[in-house]
Amino acid sequence: MKLLRVGSAGAERPALLDQSGTLRDLSGIVPDIDGALLSDGAALERVRAVAESGTLPELPALPGAEAGPESLRIGAPVARIGKIVCIGLNYHDHARETGAAVPGEPILFMKAPDTVVGPHDTVLVPRRSQKTDWEVELAVVIGRTARYLDSHEEALACVAGYAVANDVSEREFQIERGGQWDKGKNCETFNPLGPWLVTADEVPDPQALAMRLWVNGELRQNGTSADQIFPVAEVVRYLSQFMTLYPGDVINTGTPAGVAMGMDEPKPYLRDGDVVELEIEGLGSQRQVMKTA
Amino acid sequence: MKLLRVGSAGAERPALLDQSGTLRDLSGIVPDIDGALLSDGAALERVRAVAESGTLPELPALPGAEAGPESLRIGAPVARIGKIVCIGLNYHDHARETGAAVPGEPILFMKAPDTVVGPHDTVLVPRRSQKTDWEVELAVVIGRTARYLDSHEEALACVAGYAVANDVSEREFQIERGGQWDKGKNCETFNPLGPWLVTADEVPDPQALAMRLWVNGELRQNGTSADQIFPVAEVVRYLSQFMTLYPGDVINTGTPAGVAMGMDEPKPYLRDGDVVELEIEGLGSQRQVMKTA
Repeated sequence: MKLLRVGSAGAERPALLDQSGTLRDLSGIVPDIDGALLSDGAALERVRAVAESGTLPELPALPGAEAGPESLRIGAPVARIGKIVCIGLNYHDHARETGAAVPGEPILFMKAPDTVVGPHDTVLVPRRSQKTDWEVELAVVIGRTARYLDSHEEALACVAGYAVANDVSEREFQIERGGQWDKGKNCETFNPLGPWLVTADEVPDPQALAMRLWVNGELRQNGTSADQIFPVAEVVRYLSQFMTLYPGDVINTGTPAGVAMGMDEPKPYLRDGDVVELEIEGLGSQRQVMKTA
Repeated sequence: MKLLRVGSAGAERPALLDQSGTLRDLSGIVPDIDGALLSDGAALERVRAVAESGTLPELPALPGAEAGPESLRIGAPVARIGKIVCIGLNYHDHARETGAAVPGEPILFMKAPDTVVGPHDTVLVPRRSQKTDWEVELAVVIGRTARYLDSHEEALACVAGYAVANDVSEREFQIERGGQWDKGKNCETFNPLGPWLVTADEVPDPQALAMRLWVNGELRQNGTSADQIFPVAEVVRYLSQFMTLYPGDVINTGTPAGVAMGMDEPKPYLRDGDVVELEIEGLGSQRQVMKTA
């Protein structure tokens, strides 16, 4: 299933994109799409049954990336995210472009859930920012509590689904301002998520997803999750040794090569008015216009 | 005012410790103590007026640090915390003991809100942990949105109040496991908070608070917030340049000298059964028993 949340920011309603591409209202079936729903097998089965019955009310036309203000906005597909854990340098090609060694175990940093916006919302370039950068990422949404897991099978059983994320990053704040990457990862609007959550049963191999990102129409990232150093199952298993993952938590699993930081000078960092578009195979696409905060 | 939340984990009710030390029920006045309340001046005034009227119902005797299972448990004093931002190496004496240079600007890392427990709750020593450490910290609770603040006056106006925090840390996970401190800061139960939130009007100078921590009765930390490299007002102003702080967010402002990591070998890291007690002048005390996860 493709689960999403549509409506104005803070007042989204749950919805479903059915197999014919029709947007359908779920608000009569479940209160929202969040950790409570994703951990409730019976509720998810109810949604699935009702979706297949074709009786769910239609919503107005699916808002596209180019949607004007009149269209239905798409919000992030998960409400009340508990935490966002991010994996750094998790693609061989990205490690190469940044000149970093391939990490021996996953590098972990955090984004606050309040950085999350919808997939087509404006992204704010922070004041005094010179190095705002993009990162297309496969986001993993947790559906079952993960704590000291032993195996990759157990780890994948904790995954509710997948989504596209843009792990927007300010490289000066992240690297040149006195330590710890979180400083450049938590600016307002720095985590577009969506358009939808694709349930795990529809993503048979999370390690075979093509992903691309364009800036102002120019292709900048063109990678695949096959290049991940630590695949999704290992990331979830590993993280569960250091923290407990709860339903509704999100993991940004790292970005492939092609970020501005990895390019030749002058590096094309994002400026007011720039347009970023990104997509992951089977998970939909995002489009954001940059605007100075 | 001293605001707190009492009851079993996940089912706490709001309460107030009045000037005579009597615990009083606030659940008839406000739904909870959270960002919504802390940013609502009228609601806070209503609580204050009712507190001074002496008409609030009494709750059973105040649970002490030694409280048995029959007593009323104290939870963390803030519900629905949005994010926890932590400042690293923010005391001159702690920078010295760790051999680190005094930072030129605040070092920032994050803890997930799901690490928060009550002030007397059990703290879990992670499996395979060899280096679980303590850190008494002055926690700042935000009451007004802080975004690109210009002055220390504006910054202090965003502070709802103060509390005691234990920024429990696993040093091997934090430092020796492949990068970024967050890996050793986000284990389950790693952020005891409370016992109460003391509103900012009752803390005239946050830079003059004595703080102490004992392990198994032995004094280990004996510092003062006067030794902070970046005082509270500067921390809030500085953070607001990199992220937006919202009502209900918490800042752990760093720890003074005396952590296990800074001591001679064999360093006395925490083990199952160890008892940690900590206090900050005017903000109350905590007591935790360590238990292997």
